[in-house]
Amino acid sequence: MAKSNDWGGPNRQWVIAEHPVTTLEARHFEYREAPVAEPGPGEVLLKTHLLNIAPVMRMYMMQGGAAGEAPLEIGEVIHGRGVAEVIASNHAGFAPGEFVQGQLGWQTWKVSRMTDAEKFRRLKPHGLPIHHALTVFGMTGFSAYCGFFGRGQPRPSDAVLVSGAAGGVGSLVVQMARLHGCAPLVGIAGGPEKCSLIEKLGCDVAIDYKADDVAAAIRESFPAGVDLYFDNVGGEILEAALGHLAPGARVVLCGSISEYQRQTPFGPRNYTNLRRANADMRGFFVYNHSAEFDAAEAAMAAWLTEGKLKAPVDVVSGFEAMPRALMDMFESTGGGKRIVQVVEGDIACY
Amino acid sequence: MAKSNDWGGPNRQWVIAEHPVTTLEARHFEYREAPVAEPGPGEVLLKTHLLNIAPVMRMYMMQGGAAGEAPLEIGEVIHGRGVAEVIASNHAGFAPGEFVQGQLGWQTWKVSRMTDAEKFRRLKPHGLPIHHALTVFGMTGFSAYCGFFGRGQPRPSDAVLVSGAAGGVGSLVVQMARLHGCAPLVGIAGGPEKCSLIEKLGCDVAIDYKADDVAAAIRESFPAGVDLYFDNVGGEILEAALGHLAPGARVVLCGSISEYQRQTPFGPRNYTNLRRANADMRGFFVYNHSAEFDAAEAAMAAWLTEGKLKAPVDVVSGFEAMPRALMDMFESTGGGKRIVQVVEGDIACY
Repeated sequence: MAKSNDWGGPNRQWVIAEHPVTTLEARHFEYREAPVAEPGPGEVLLKTHLLNIAPVMRMYMMQGGAAGEAPLEIGEVIHGRGVAEVIASNHAGFAPGEFVQGQLGWQTWKVSRMTDAEKFRRLKPHGLPIHHALTVFGMTGFSAYCGFFGRGQPRPSDAVLVSGAAGGVGSLVVQMARLHGCAPLVGIAGGPEKCSLIEKLGCDVAIDYKADDVAAAIRESFPAGVDLYFDNVGGEILEAALGHLAPGARVVLCGSISEYQRQTPFGPRNYTNLRRANADMRGFFVYNHSAEFDAAEAAMAAWLTEGKLKAPVDVVSGFEAMPRALMDMFESTGGGKRIVQVVEGDIACY
Repeated sequence: MAKSNDWGGPNRQWVIAEHPVTTLEARHFEYREAPVAEPGPGEVLLKTHLLNIAPVMRMYMMQGGAAGEAPLEIGEVIHGRGVAEVIASNHAGFAPGEFVQGQLGWQTWKVSRMTDAEKFRRLKPHGLPIHHALTVFGMTGFSAYCGFFGRGQPRPSDAVLVSGAAGGVGSLVVQMARLHGCAPLVGIAGGPEKCSLIEKLGCDVAIDYKADDVAAAIRESFPAGVDLYFDNVGGEILEAALGHLAPGARVVLCGSISEYQRQTPFGPRNYTNLRRANADMRGFFVYNHSAEFDAAEAAMAAWLTEGKLKAPVDVVSGFEAMPRALMDMFESTGGGKRIVQVVEGDIACY
């Protein structure tokens, strides 16, 4: 076995310096370097190629933890998923040269026993760029597919509203609703650039929450009410949607970015509207749907190969950019899935 | 055709004197007397025997109306359902001597065209007292049956929580959950008397929201979380239940008595808990389920006849007592279905 230094370290890491309470700031993060560890018996040495950036990461950083990940103590590596290459392996199930996605944390190297808790998943040979492992073939794609089809139970005749429509999950849901034939299909995003993006992806109407009266725009766009609302944001926009439901409507609660930076959570004051409409508000948490991931991946790989589905990415270059890449997410819901490219060079096919 | 006076009038009425904003008070009501009208062509003359009292009536009285009934102008007869006898009929579908339940309003006589809007329903000859038309065979019973079975989709293995458990709907849901085999079965009610009632009806545990820490009591009673929460109250108790859901839980939103007297509605701040549990919050409005009423009535009539279901009533005597009977509801969720007996004497079988 080679010595640590031979792997090309050091292991660059972002650890938590302070638990955020409201707005996420640079002082919450600290950069460190450590030697690359040797893989022991049953262990794998992973080299990070790509890291995911998602608003939920702020929740991971909160005092006491949240959103299904273990609480982070000060000085611990921040939680996050990414794509890595197996560099060395003492594990029967993984061979050097293979690519995996899973819980790497904000670091450039990881030694792992590949336990269930880390939720590693081998990249399948679709002949598609590896970054798709963090878009359609990652939790983003599975959230969109399993959330929309599994929890939303869309009928082709459904009038569909998507918030955070330019974001990683939202931009996929918009396209799936279009592929399913849903109309009208209306997206909510922040600013003209993102509104233009979601129109290109298939929205009949793009509502700009930074400029428009969202509730009025929803009423105008849905003469017979909203049949299916895919919610990535929560808060006041959820209220606006609850104010205009069609009979039998379904609201899929996938994300609530508007909540992540609030100190006092905001409950939708008009939730009783669900009663008159005999409507459902359905909670969705992607890891509860892992049995559906393979089917979702196969369906989305076919769409991607046929050019029917696009997975817009927003690639940020360099591991050093991680904190800024996350903090920026809260200025707006993002245009495409945000990814940090840790290993320089073209994102390879696999 | 006999003259108006021959019917035994006058028509005694309670009309709205002022729209309530917060607490319902005596000044919101005004008593009037009018002649009994003659039924015209196609019309029926109805004599009120029983009137229903339900917290939702305060909503009907609000400025602009609410809860599915037309807004009430000052001086109009307050909305309410009841049981009436057909005294005279120029309508091919109804004969004198028949009993009906439907939208009578707070008055002792009504002339009606028996339109769909009034939602009249003929009493079926079950050989049971007519007051059951306002319990199990009325909207109360249909709310319990269609809400619990239709929207709640209970499994016999479900751990069930019912709020407003001593009330009209709640007391029936408790018994249906017991008949279905659900355990643990826990009810929430106000005060020792009502808690004792719901234990007699089948609750394993009765939580007294006036004395107990509801959230702590829920945690203690449901080691594996709540599978099905039947919500009659909304507000803080809904939040307490949302704080302790089992995976795949269903929350049936049937009523929200805690909201009716609030000026600012209260949204459940922890609704995002639905996500982690992959849980549903399902709105329920009884009139959306009218196609299921006959089946519900048949099932409940069988249970009632076999002695498996009890429909506790809280009978208030005399039409003059209507306003007080309603105002008292807001002090607590009631022990059994509250009914005002307008025609004196025993409540007859039919």
